[in-house]
Amino acid sequence: MIKKLCIIGVGLIGGSLAMALRRAGYCNEVIGAGRSAERLQKALALGVVDSFSTDLAKAVADADVVFVAVPMGAMAAVFKQIDGHLKPGAIVTDGGSAKVSVIEDAKANLQQSYSQFVPGHPIAGTEKSGVEAAFAELYKNRRVIITPTKKTNELAANAVVSMWQAAGAEVESMAAEHHDMVLAGTSHLPHLLAFGLVNCLFENNNSESYFRYAAGGFRDFTRIASSDPVMWRDICLSNKTALLDSLGLYQAELERLKDAITKDDADQLLSYFQSAKESRDKFNF
Amino acid sequence: MIKKLCIIGVGLIGGSLAMALRRAGYCNEVIGAGRSAERLQKALALGVVDSFSTDLAKAVADADVVFVAVPMGAMAAVFKQIDGHLKPGAIVTDGGSAKVSVIEDAKANLQQSYSQFVPGHPIAGTEKSGVEAAFAELYKNRRVIITPTKKTNELAANAVVSMWQAAGAEVESMAAEHHDMVLAGTSHLPHLLAFGLVNCLFENNNSESYFRYAAGGFRDFTRIASSDPVMWRDICLSNKTALLDSLGLYQAELERLKDAITKDDADQLLSYFQSAKESRDKFNF
Repeated sequence: MIKKLCIIGVGLIGGSLAMALRRAGYCNEVIGAGRSAERLQKALALGVVDSFSTDLAKAVADADVVFVAVPMGAMAAVFKQIDGHLKPGAIVTDGGSAKVSVIEDAKANLQQSYSQFVPGHPIAGTEKSGVEAAFAELYKNRRVIITPTKKTNELAANAVVSMWQAAGAEVESMAAEHHDMVLAGTSHLPHLLAFGLVNCLFENNNSESYFRYAAGGFRDFTRIASSDPVMWRDICLSNKTALLDSLGLYQAELERLKDAITKDDADQLLSYFQSAKESRDKFNF
Repeated sequence: MIKKLCIIGVGLIGGSLAMALRRAGYCNEVIGAGRSAERLQKALALGVVDSFSTDLAKAVADADVVFVAVPMGAMAAVFKQIDGHLKPGAIVTDGGSAKVSVIEDAKANLQQSYSQFVPGHPIAGTEKSGVEAAFAELYKNRRVIITPTKKTNELAANAVVSMWQAAGAEVESMAAEHHDMVLAGTSHLPHLLAFGLVNCLFENNNSESYFRYAAGGFRDFTRIASSDPVMWRDICLSNKTALLDSLGLYQAELERLKDAITKDDADQLLSYFQSAKESRDKFNF
């Protein structure tokens, strides 16, 4: 149970956690915080938060748990603003999509409460953003990864695990570096590829034809290119090393395919596609 | 109305056309043809065809319309086998995903009835294949492109347009070269990219982690990597020129992204993602 929860950044991710915990009866009071009073007013009107403040220091003052759900590029500034204003024993956790950089930001800025900081990442979301897109079931049966450091207080980590479980998620723990590598491959790289495909086709003279005849495969492939540009800019910069590694491996795959097509290498193409189909078919989703 | 329709290759594409036309009352009799008696037997058992033959020359003998729905690599051999066995005035059309190469195959092999050949491509399908996956609604409100040549008999082309309309599709006509370029971008390239991503992640030591934590974006992005490997091998070889052009443009996009990430160029990344999102958001699908 959480008496008072503070959500910094009440969008799809932050808003959905508030809604899920409220519905589960797991928290009494939610205060929203962020830069835009207008957007916080919307969260209030939607019943996602009970009150709000654009003054982060004030917003966290009585909170038992603070969930930071802002774009990665804003994490350091948020930690700096709340440091020294948290109540003793308050837990801070986040929802950032890359973990090594958030841990660095927390270490540098959360001086008084770094051991109370539990790095986390709910693997959930849609291509939509903003509090209007938030819903209580977002985390149901989804995975949340926490990446505690050696300094992380174990009780704080356990409390964050319980919180996500109350929201319906399954929680796992791993090293931040491993998390960043896995997410680079399964999420960050696919987003890059989708953004790249849309621009590749649209910058072309035939863009109208392209979209007129686009079928289901194209639709599914590019859906994620509607995702929030600021969030993805920040993810690329925050998970730079792992993402560049993944991108390099992927570029090598495209070179292999290009070679095989150029050489009319039917056997190579067939075995390449067979192996991909076999791998993909293992997943019933 | 078609008295007797012959479907060569009774899989998802061929089987669904038979089912749609039968349901629309647009054809009296359907004969299936192909290499595998076992698979044709299945089509018969499912009620998709009324009879079948593995002898293509016999199967087409009385047919008014012959629909060739085999992988691109088998087109030339099929045309060769049916040439000289068609009844006078019979119309031949196909469902191949690239059109320039099918036209070449038809020109070289359909000597007696080349003017009765109408190149076509229904832009429909799922990642599934085989007659078990066929369904009558596959073409409903989907586009079919026909790419008649200067030699194509106009009445034959009109008959093919009417047939697809009876199956529920919207039909458009364009030059084969334009078709191939548009499809390379909207379908063939996305499939390559999806096959490439699955192999990129699965050949890696961390493949188990990758799939354990894969979320919705990854699922949608890689769904098409479950598509039929033989069909895609043939498409790559048949639409080689246009596909290599598209792939080259795409590789340049990835280089741009790699540069921007390497240089921490936040502005470039943001404007890149914004432009992709803007383009993608125009499509309400």
